[in-house]
Formats: sequence, C-alpha cells, structure tokens
Amino acid sequence: MNIALDMMGGDYAPLQAVKGVAEYLATNPTDIHLTLIGNQPQIEECILSNPLPTGTYTIVHAQQVIEMNEHPTKALKEKQQSSIALGFNLLATAKTDAFISAGNTGAMMVGALFSIKTIPGVLRPTIGAYMPREDGKLGLLVDVGLNADSKPENLNQFAVLGSLFSKYILGFQNPQVGLVNLGEEEGKGNLLAQATYPLLKENTQLNFKGNIEGRDILTAKAEVMVCDGFTGNVVLKLAESIYDIAKRRGLNDEHFNRFNFEIYGGVPILGVAKPVIIGHGISCATAFKNMLVTAQRMLQSGLMEKMKESFVK
Amino acid sequence: MNIALDMMGGDYAPLQAVKGVAEYLATNPTDIHLTLIGNQPQIEECILSNPLPTGTYTIVHAQQVIEMNEHPTKALKEKQQSSIALGFNLLATAKTDAFISAGNTGAMMVGALFSIKTIPGVLRPTIGAYMPREDGKLGLLVDVGLNADSKPENLNQFAVLGSLFSKYILGFQNPQVGLVNLGEEEGKGNLLAQATYPLLKENTQLNFKGNIEGRDILTAKAEVMVCDGFTGNVVLKLAESIYDIAKRRGLNDEHFNRFNFEIYGGVPILGVAKPVIIGHGISCATAFKNMLVTAQRMLQSGLMEKMKESFVK
Repeated sequence: MNIALDMMGGDYAPLQAVKGVAEYLATNPTDIHLTLIGNQPQIEECILSNPLPTGTYTIVHAQQVIEMNEHPTKALKEKQQSSIALGFNLLATAKTDAFISAGNTGAMMVGALFSIKTIPGVLRPTIGAYMPREDGKLGLLVDVGLNADSKPENLNQFAVLGSLFSKYILGFQNPQVGLVNLGEEEGKGNLLAQATYPLLKENTQLNFKGNIEGRDILTAKAEVMVCDGFTGNVVLKLAESIYDIAKRRGLNDEHFNRFNFEIYGGVPILGVAKPVIIGHGISCATAFKNMLVTAQRMLQSGLMEKMKESFVK
Repeated sequence: MNIALDMMGGDYAPLQAVKGVAEYLATNPTDIHLTLIGNQPQIEECILSNPLPTGTYTIVHAQQVIEMNEHPTKALKEKQQSSIALGFNLLATAKTDAFISAGNTGAMMVGALFSIKTIPGVLRPTIGAYMPREDGKLGLLVDVGLNADSKPENLNQFAVLGSLFSKYILGFQNPQVGLVNLGEEEGKGNLLAQATYPLLKENTQLNFKGNIEGRDILTAKAEVMVCDGFTGNVVLKLAESIYDIAKRRGLNDEHFNRFNFEIYGGVPILGVAKPVIIGHGISCATAFKNMLVTAQRMLQSGLMEKMKESFVK
C-alpha cells in the first residue's frame, strides 16, 4: 500500500517531515511504500542528514506550496503544482491510498470534499478531534468544524463514522456514543439536538448512551461525542488553550500535557473513500510519524471497508 | 432597597445561606434590607449560632421547597408556597427589588421569564457566566443556556446587555465584544454567526472587536463573548470541569482554582426588569455573600436604568 505525505506542510517543513518519516520507517512497517511530495532538492538535502532506507519511498517533486494563510479554494485552483494539489491528484487517480498533510487546513478540507469521493451513502464527511482522557486513552469528538451547520441525519452519520474509527483505531471494542447537549435528560437541547436524539437512539449500529454535557467531554463519559461542527470547533480550540494556559502557569502535569494537540499528529477526515489526515500546523517529527501510523492503521485494519459496509442501503 | 434571598436553595441550605448573609451584613451595606425566604424555624435556628444584626432583615416563611430534580414549570405551578415561588411573587409585586436563589436552576429561569417583566424592547433575556482571565478579572460569556436556539437579533441584544453588565459590575470601562466563532475572519461561521456579525458591527452601542475562537474564550481577548445558549452552555460546563480535573490531578494553581465556579456565587439573568441571580447548587457562605454583593451593585450602580435606556426605541 502507498501513503502520500505532503513534505511542505507545517511550520518546520520539510525537515520535521523527513525526521518523522525516518521515525516511522524505523518501525519497519509491513507492505507500506511512501510517496513524499514536495520540493525535491529540499527534501533530498534533509535526507542527507536523516537517511531513509532505500526502496521504501519515492519523491514526487512539487514546484509550488500552498501557504498557511492562502484562501483554500483559490489556492487549490491556482496552484495545481502545489504539494497538496498533487497529493489529492495522486489519491483521486489511485496512485496512492492515503494522503497526509500538515499544511493549509482549509485547502485540505476543500481537497478532501471535492477531489475524492465520499463513501456511497455518506451525506457529509466529518472531521474528528481526539479528546485526552484521564485513563490515558483518547475520546473522539465529531464534528470539529467541517460542518458548521449540521442536520440531524448528518450527526447520526458522524456517530457511525466516529464509532468505527474509535473501534478500529482508538481501541474501544464497543464505543459508547454521547450526544453533546446542554442537559442529560432526553428532550433537552436546541432544535438540532432534540431532533438528533431519536435518530441516535434508534440506530442499531450505535452503542448510544444518551446526552452528555460540556463537563463530560474531557471525562470519558462517552468514547464518541457527537455535535455540530460549530460547537465542536469551539470546544476543540478551548481544549487546546488549556495546555497553553497550563504552560504559562508553569504547570507540568502528565494529563494536562496531553492537551498539547501537536503530539497526536493530526485528525482524520471521516466519510471519504480513502484516508485523509490533516496535521497540526506546528507538527514535529513525532506528529508526522503518528499521522503515518494512523494512516497505515486506517488502511490495514479494515476500517475503510467497514465504513463502506455501514452505509450500504 | 430590598434584596430577597431564597434560604432553601443549594445543597447546604439554610446554614450556608445564613452564614453568607452574616458575611454580607458585616460589610455594612448602605440602604439595603434583606428578605430571607424559607423555613422560618430552620432559619432561626441557624441564626442562633450565626447572629445577624437586628433590623437588617425580615424572614418570610415558606412552607415548601422546590427540590433540585423537580420539573421547573410543574413545580412552580404546584408549589406556590415554595421559597422560589414566593420570591418571584415578592419581586413581581415590588415588595423586593432583587431576588437570589441557589435552588432549582430551571425553576429560577422559568420564574424570571414568566413572573417578572422583561425590559421593554428586549426580545429574550439571557443568562451570562463569568470566565476567569489570567489578569485576575472576569470575562462574561452570554448566553450560557437560557436560549438554546438563538436568533441574530437575540445575540445582538445579549451583546448590549453583557456590555453594560461588564461595565457596571465587572469594571471594564469600554468592554470589547467578541462573537464566538470558528474562525477569526469576517464571513466565517455557521449561519447564525454569519448573520450576527454585521448586526454587531453596525451596533453603535457596542465596542465590537470581531470574531473570537474557542482558544480566546479563556484568554481575555474580549470582555464580553457572545454566542447561542447551546454553545455557551457546553463551553461553561467544559470550563467548570477543568477545575475538577485539576483538583483530581492534585494541582493547586491560583488561576485554575478560579475555575471553581462556586466562588462567584451565581450568574445574573440579564434583560429582565429587576436583578435576578441564579446561584450554583453547591453554594457556600462566600457564594451567597458574593451574590448579595452583585445584587446590591446591580441595584445601586444604575445598571438597571442604563439597560432600560439602551432599549428605548
């Protein structure tokens, strides 16, 4: 299988990407070939000081880079030789099986939505974020911004996609699904949450637990937490800021350190036919390695097939 | 002026309420008489061990108590002799000027919405919550749950009400208003945020700063942060849980300790004609004292008159 990685994405590209690739390849992944997309001379220079095993990778030269502050749709259209555009091109034409970038988030979202197919039956793909739990595991919050306005049937699908990801990648055998809401009782909520509750309750593909509140998001009350992308985005960025505040306060606590979202590497787009992972802008070598590991697991665990089966009518 | 306090609300009633009243009266408030509503024998017993200056208070006996888990509307209707029902009755008939309770939150909301008048011109009252800032001051997040589904014109009014509260009670001369959103740029957001932005921008009563993101909520980027009640409720409860997590981790940090929302006493309902403050269920003596101080300030600072002037057409 082939995983493509945008070497130009992230604040420390391509050096940290190369280092991450080296870390990843040191794990001797089975049946994986890497496609490294980016400025070839720059990549090769980094490889000189961070040697990679020959035969494990191919470099695809990209003449352009989409910068972090560029308008996603415009940049993707105008910079067809950029690493992100080339990556989605390779993915769409089946020359790679997965694509990872820590570059322009918007361009990654637009690319995922418009250049590759969604899983048949999926109305809207979603983007999830890990929520660190005190037991050391990771919860999953979906959606965190791809769908600012969501419909009940969207949330119902996000729950299915999130549950499968939680099971196959995050290691929960029968993940509990919680609907993020402003009260615990059935019937509570805004119109969206009220209309979503019965859909989740009746969905036999889910282990639905009921409503969860804001105080439950960081405390392992459910493994998969479902909400619209507006709420989820605010929650994710608030959670990220906890680490910054703790750091400014000089606190060094193992659990609060896990709110440093950079360490997770990236978050998957769920509901598209192939693995796409969006990395944090300030991804370090470990983050790149972790994204490669996640993409490999998404390919080799059978997750993608399970997702397809779940949406067959 | 007269402030009524529900002595039966909160997990440690009426003892902590009596202790809070004692602390408050020790500040020698000017021109304030207290009306203490609740089970008279129980209150008097607590006063024996926590003496209150004579002539500063009157006890109004309430035969009933609305418990924390009762259905708000039903309980208010059926328990007309409860401390909360009596409190709103006194407020509605101008026998008191403000009402405070740490009891059933839903009953307090229903009472505030239906038994006393909103300020003329206010479409929907709102409930705000304090957000602790690293500079030691308090930001204000509105709405945090009274309006699960809000309209743009509601958010615009919440911003005005919140700004006045921030100025007159929280001490910000010209509070900056931020619209909670999933991106900083104008045009970002769900449909609600997109439609709200121009209203806030054009509102000459506001010092509108633009969009703020989840990461800005705890970091003093704006003094007044406006969002729908669903998002705000999730944010508030998530923020509350940070303190619980820090405590479980054995952390004792001055700033994180300020996420113990009990210390603030309670949050005001804004947009109703008279001060109504809803306390935290586990309010301690200091919380009761702080709520009394806030009610006094709301009455004596001219805030209520300013709010009325702001909504005159």
